[in-house]
Parts: sequence; structure tokens; C-alpha cells
Amino acid sequence: MDNTNSEEHNQSLNYLFKPKTVAIYEAKSKIYYFIEGFIRQGFDLDNLFLISSSEDEISGIKCFKSFDEIPEKSIDLLILSVRRELLIPSLEDIFSEIHVKFIHIFTAGTGEADEVGMKIESELKQLLDSKQNTRAIGPNCMGIYSPKGKVAYYPSFPIESGNIGLIFQSGDLHSRFIKFSNNKYNLHFSKGISIGNCVDIQIQEILDYFNNDEETDLICVYFEGFSPLHPKAGINLFNVLKTMNKPVLFMRGGKTERGKIAVISHTGSIVTQNKIWDAIYKQTMIIEVPPSLESLINYTYLFYKYINRFKKLKQETNYPKGKKVLVILWSGGFGILATDILTNLGLEMPYFEGESLRKLEKIYLARIGSLKNPIDLPWISNTEEYYLVCKTAIDEKDIDLVVVETDAWNDIENERFKSYYKNLIKIKNYTESNNKVFILILHEYPGRNREIFYEKLINDDFIVFPSVKIAAKAFLKLYEYGTKLNKKINS
Amino acid sequence: MDNTNSEEHNQSLNYLFKPKTVAIYEAKSKIYYFIEGFIRQGFDLDNLFLISSSEDEISGIKCFKSFDEIPEKSIDLLILSVRRELLIPSLEDIFSEIHVKFIHIFTAGTGEADEVGMKIESELKQLLDSKQNTRAIGPNCMGIYSPKGKVAYYPSFPIESGNIGLIFQSGDLHSRFIKFSNNKYNLHFSKGISIGNCVDIQIQEILDYFNNDEETDLICVYFEGFSPLHPKAGINLFNVLKTMNKPVLFMRGGKTERGKIAVISHTGSIVTQNKIWDAIYKQTMIIEVPPSLESLINYTYLFYKYINRFKKLKQETNYPKGKKVLVILWSGGFGILATDILTNLGLEMPYFEGESLRKLEKIYLARIGSLKNPIDLPWISNTEEYYLVCKTAIDEKDIDLVVVETDAWNDIENERFKSYYKNLIKIKNYTESNNKVFILILHEYPGRNREIFYEKLINDDFIVFPSVKIAAKAFLKLYEYGTKLNKKINS
Repeated sequence: MDNTNSEEHNQSLNYLFKPKTVAIYEAKSKIYYFIEGFIRQGFDLDNLFLISSSEDEISGIKCFKSFDEIPEKSIDLLILSVRRELLIPSLEDIFSEIHVKFIHIFTAGTGEADEVGMKIESELKQLLDSKQNTRAIGPNCMGIYSPKGKVAYYPSFPIESGNIGLIFQSGDLHSRFIKFSNNKYNLHFSKGISIGNCVDIQIQEILDYFNNDEETDLICVYFEGFSPLHPKAGINLFNVLKTMNKPVLFMRGGKTERGKIAVISHTGSIVTQNKIWDAIYKQTMIIEVPPSLESLINYTYLFYKYINRFKKLKQETNYPKGKKVLVILWSGGFGILATDILTNLGLEMPYFEGESLRKLEKIYLARIGSLKNPIDLPWISNTEEYYLVCKTAIDEKDIDLVVVETDAWNDIENERFKSYYKNLIKIKNYTESNNKVFILILHEYPGRNREIFYEKLINDDFIVFPSVKIAAKAFLKLYEYGTKLNKKINS
Repeated sequence: MDNTNSEEHNQSLNYLFKPKTVAIYEAKSKIYYFIEGFIRQGFDLDNLFLISSSEDEISGIKCFKSFDEIPEKSIDLLILSVRRELLIPSLEDIFSEIHVKFIHIFTAGTGEADEVGMKIESELKQLLDSKQNTRAIGPNCMGIYSPKGKVAYYPSFPIESGNIGLIFQSGDLHSRFIKFSNNKYNLHFSKGISIGNCVDIQIQEILDYFNNDEETDLICVYFEGFSPLHPKAGINLFNVLKTMNKPVLFMRGGKTERGKIAVISHTGSIVTQNKIWDAIYKQTMIIEVPPSLESLINYTYLFYKYINRFKKLKQETNYPKGKKVLVILWSGGFGILATDILTNLGLEMPYFEGESLRKLEKIYLARIGSLKNPIDLPWISNTEEYYLVCKTAIDEKDIDLVVVETDAWNDIENERFKSYYKNLIKIKNYTESNNKVFILILHEYPGRNREIFYEKLINDDFIVFPSVKIAAKAFLKLYEYGTKLNKKINS
């Protein structure tokens, strides 16, 4: 089954993400979400076969009593949901009835649970190894999300597709990533997989597939560890990671000793040593993400927006080459905190004095507020001078990142607001037309005004973060990728 | 004017926070928010005197042309809003007409702007020093918020009072702290002051006043630096900090070299060295907060809820003495990240094995999920066994902090939800009745279901944080205060 990197293999994985025929065994109303996921995505329901010994119909779809009743003799994707004791006998029965290209083994309580479960996984691997043309993901996983393949394991997943690929060793985090990031930042996905305990298909196979997948431009991984049944999985993953030509945001769970123990009861995986990972981060293009779903979502958001801006212009992504920040304030005190945070994180904040300050003062002499970076001009944010000061400041110090702090207005129909908002758009367009990064900060607190403003900003294609710290950390990941890319090109 | 620590002084500051008579000079429609702040708080408008040469009425309140027209010969609080050139001459005029107990100098563009402004501050100090019974805050500040004194400089500030006192060297951060923390966590305040450049009244005078103020149980400070006109301000502050007998959450701006430069153009203050501050944090009871308004709000929220829980029971606050955490999951993958985050931050996560595991397994044998901490029981969260497992786990390892991860439900009228919610309340009550900390995690993303659930939780007195990391960091501050208190008692 070692067909990593082969074109055939890549082609075959298409059936996993874009199956023409799907069977669910045993279908039960308890797992209605699988069925409603297919319905909502618009999957051809004539090719969705529910096999249930106990139920006649689920979510309006008729159930078959057994595999011999269904009209197909070959199924692209089988979702297998039986008690662990029934895994092997069920599969043997099914294999005697029909051919299956891919199996999503939903069943949990195997390798992560106890020795009995581990033994079942071992038998499962043997059985799968003996079936040349059948591959499986799982057990202990939620399966596939593929809007273009019209497959989703939850009805709440978006129908619209994008260009992010997901590989997660936790169905929970996978689902939440999709839900949160779509709700909050309007992110969309090409393909996602909750891959579980990896008894057959390994993470690196999916990575390699995504690397060659035209629909995927950015990849996020949540990794816990390797299956004890695959002693070469580590080196295989490393080899694939070295070949990746798309940004891979890589989050690892079980980094602490106590976390490693927790992993065992979650996916039963073997956790590798941190120092090995440090070397992998150094020797490959992948970007390390700390153990926090929020961080992974935030970083992905910035990469996604940034990559797609260039894609829209049919240009190659031009990653930031420097770390010079200009901060434009809403008002006073935040500037001090922002300065402390940004410089603490290693960003540079050019200070405007002497000739460069005079250039700005020629446009507007700020006696109340400041032109020195942070720029703090509370009284003129709705004027042409405001835009000119910001534009000149960006040019003057060859800024790489512009961070603008804003706040919700009571009335966005107000003329003053409209002029201010036009300035925001002008500063954004100017920054981005110069291949720099523009980020807006809107602090997060409940309230209808904030919600309305936030929606407007997201619709108008602004990149909006809830704090300067998050914005800075996300930017630094973009910068890190740019630096790695540069090194690779020059080596 | 060195009347720090004297009882008289403390009494006199009452007029600053609870003035009987207020005058605003020059009143202009541009600063309508001051006037509407008083209106909204229910201040006796017969005792609010607007003096304006240009306007007849602002927000429905009549303006006087000059001070000699008003019926009072002594004013508790004067809000002074004139151009900086007019500061000295205006004050000289006013002093010749009436007596003023406190002045809030709103005027900006003085010490923080340039040398002319610094000279004005120096003259201002001289003038104030010569007036025995007149004290001033500012310049360059927003002034007072005091719901019991019916004073607020913004109409949006809450009318209801609480027991948090605020001292901020940034009007912007002061206002946002009040607005954000009230919106998000329903926090309430005894008294707040945006204190500005500190030409006369110093931060330590307010700290000392709050320390003796029965309405205040918890104090938050945002500090930038000392006025160059008060060379002894540093040692005076240190001396007062040593005497504080209430928790003081202390956030400092201008910690980095670049931040120090930013401070100069914000409040014109002299910034002290970090190593001096490290010593102060060690030698006093104050709690250091990193430069982040979100952090300050989050930590304050936990202290506020915790202190008020004991206050309601008429008990002394019993701060946590250990760092043992029990994590109860919503489901799987988050547990690994939570374990990594918590142990990385120095918390302990007792692992359930052997006898203690069997105790839990006697209540519920989890083959899918885990009882080992994190507790992950996705299928039984609505049952009595769930509560019993959690309760037993808390007792078994003498847990100090219980973190429960939850998620929004589509339908909170659903029976399953209601049973689950009852369990949450029972676990919370059990934890708190044992003087331990109970924190709920509800991840932050847009959506009506989440909003409804969040509101319900806040109304039902749950402490809710958006991430495990934030919860852990806030808890550690509570623990730090408890540790300092313990040392103090034992020394």
C-alpha cells in the first residue's frame, strides 16, 4: 500500500473526496447528521445508499435491509458505523457483497481505548492490507468535508467552496475550525478530512494529494501522532513535508509530557519528541502554530486573504520581506500598549522625527495627538489630510504592515462616518496596491453597532482582527513563510 | 500639598468623586457628552452650571455668560475646557470670582506636546500650589466616572455601581475598559478616574483614597509614568503601594524602549526602568498585568466575580492555595490543546489512574471518551452519572480549578439541553461551595445561538471565558494574589 507520491494514488484519492456513490452502514437516526450533510450539499441522493436492519427511512431517505438489495456492485465511499466488535465481521460480509474504493471508519473506542481496541486495529490493518483496491480512513474520525464533492458530515458546513485544505486528527477540532472560521472570517475550504487513528491512510498521503490538488492553495494540519501500526510514518511524513510547495500551517497537540498522555486516550497515537519537531520546522517550509484553535484560525485567515488577493490579480503571492509597522490609532492610550506589544514581538516601529516628521507636519500639524508612529489624529480622521498623512508615512519608511485601530460607530449613515470609512478604504487600497499588508483592529465586545460594522468590514474585504497582538502574530507567520521561501529560492 | 495618607485628604477627595456643584467652562456643544453624562446619571441639574460665551443652551441646559451670573460662590468640581494658551488666564479669572475645590483640566496639548506645553504645565503647578484649598486632575484627561456621585463623562457609562475602582493614565483606555467590561462581563464600578498628566493630584493619592474607600474592593491601574514636575512621585507611589490592602491589578504602558518614546507624546511622563518595577511587583501586593486591555479586563472579571461571591456570603475572600485543574470537555480534541496550554502555563493536571480511575469507572465506565482528566463524556452530559463523575473527580484530587468547556446549542428549550444545563449548575455550585474556582469556556464566534447562551450564562452568574488560555492566565493571577497574601500573613 506504499503508493505515496504516485500520480495514480493521487487520482484515486479523488474518489474519497468526490465519491459518485456512497453507502452508510449501519444507518441509524442517531447519525442523521451524516445523511443531512449529504442532503444539504446537494449530493445525488439516488447514489446515497443507507443500509439499516432496524429503520425504514432516515431524514426522508429510504433504507435498504442489506447490501445485496442496492443496485450498485461497487461503491466509492462506505461510511462504516458499527460497534467495534462488529468491525471485522461486517467488513468481511461487505467485501463478499460489493467492491468498496474507500471506507470512512467512524467507529470509536478502538486503539485509543484499550488493548482489545488495539488488537481490533491490528486486525483491521491486516484485512485492509489484503484488499488491494480498498483504502480506509479512521477509525475514530468524522470523515470528509468536500463542498465540490457535495460531501459534508454536518449539515451546518458551508456549501460554497474555497481553497483551504484541512487534515485534522480530531473531528471535534476539524468541525469547529470549519464552523468558527466560516462564521467569523468567512473562510471557505476545498477539502477537509478528520482522519482519526490512521490505521490505513496516513497524513502524508493526504498532504501529498493536497500539494498536487489544483483546488487547494493553503493547508492546515492538526497533528497528534503516528499510528503504532505504521513504524515508517514519521520519516514518510518528513519526506512529504520537504516537498510541499504550498503554505502548511501545522498545529501539534501533545507537546507537553502531560499532553502526550492525553493523546493516548484520544487517538492512541505515538507522540514524537519536541526536538525532532524543531528540526522538522527548520528543515521544511511548514509553519508552526502553537496549540490553540484560535491561533490556527487567525493565521489561516491572514494567509487565506493574502494569497487570494494575489490570486485574484493572477500574480504570484509576494510575501512580506520586512517587519516595519505603521500604527494608525483610533485614539491615544492604545498606542502605548500597541507599541509595547509590537516591539516585544520583534516588529519594528519606525519613529517619525526630523525630516520625515516635517514632511508629515507639512500636511497636518498635530498639536493634539501625534504624527510620530503611532499616528494619532483623532480630530481629522474624516478629512483628505488624514489619508495624505497616512499615505506619506507608509512611503516615507517603506512600511511592510499597516495596522489601523478602529471602533464601532453608533450611526454608519452619518456623514462623518462615511468620510472616515472612505479614508479607511483608500488607505487599505493604497497599502495593498504596494504589496503590503493592511490589517484593521476592531476590539471584540458584544453590541449591535459593533456587529453591523464588523459585517460591513468583512463584506468590504477588510482583514479584521480583534487585537493588535493577534494581528502581529499572524503577520509574523506570513513573514516567516516569506523568509523561508526566499531562502529556498536563493539556495 | 503633600497630604497623602491623611484622613482629611481622603475626605476632601469625596468632593471630586461626589461633587454637589459642578461648573463647565467653556461649555460648547462639541463636548455635549460631558453634559449628557451628568444628565444620564441623574445629577441634580440645578447644580450643574454651564458657562459659555457663545451658546445659550446645550442639551437642554441653559448656559451662563460668566461665573458672576451663577448663584454659587463655591464650586466642588470645575471642568476646564479651554485652549492651552487660556489655561492660566482663565484660572486666574475664575479664582477671582469663585472658590473651586477640584478642577478637572480637560485641555490637551500641554506637557505631552512640546516645550511651550511643558512651560504651561509648570506655570499651572505654581498657580495650583499657591491655592491651598484647590486641587486639580489633568491636564489631558477625561475626568471622573462615579455612578454613586452621579458623574460620568460619557452618557453610555452604566448607572448601576459596583465595587471596582479605576485609575487610568489614558482616557481612551479608561472609557473602553468601562464600556467593554460592562458590555461583555457586566462589570460595575465604584469610581473611575482618567488622571492624565498629573500636574497636581498624583496616582498614589487616589490609590490611598481607594484603599480607604468602603465602596471599593478591587482596583485597576493603567500607568504610563510620572510627571517631571513631581520628582518624589515614584517613591511616594511605592510607599502607598506597600500599604494597599485590596487587590490592585497594575498594567504599565511604555515597558519597551520604543514604548517609552511613545509615552512621551501621549502624557509627557517620565518612564521608569523595568527592573525597578520588577522589584516593586515583588515587594508589594500588586499584581502585574501585561500590556493588553483584554488581559486587564479578563483578570479584573475573575477577581470581581470571586471577591463578590465571598462578599455576598459575608465571608473573607478565600484565595486559591493550589494549582490543580480538572478539565471537563465538551468533546475530544480540545482536551489535548487544553492539556498542553494548562501545563505549559504551570498548572497541574492530576491524572486519574489506578484506584482513583476505578472510583470514577464505578460511576460510569467510559469506553468512548475518557475519565482520565480531561474528562470527556460526550454521551452522558445530561445524566446524573455525569454530575457524580465530576463531583467525585473534584474531591478525589482536591482540585482548585474546574474548567468546563461548553458550546452553544441550537435549542435551549430542548429537554436534553435542560438536563445538561442543570448539571452545569450543579457542578458549579458544588465547586464553589468548596471554595474552589469554576470557569466555563465558551468559544467566541458570531452567531445568535451563542449570544443567547452567553447571555443566559452571564445572567446565571457563571464565569465565562472565551478560551482555556485566558481562563488559566486569569486564575494564575488570583492564585498569585492568594500566595502573596499568605506570605504577608505568615511574615
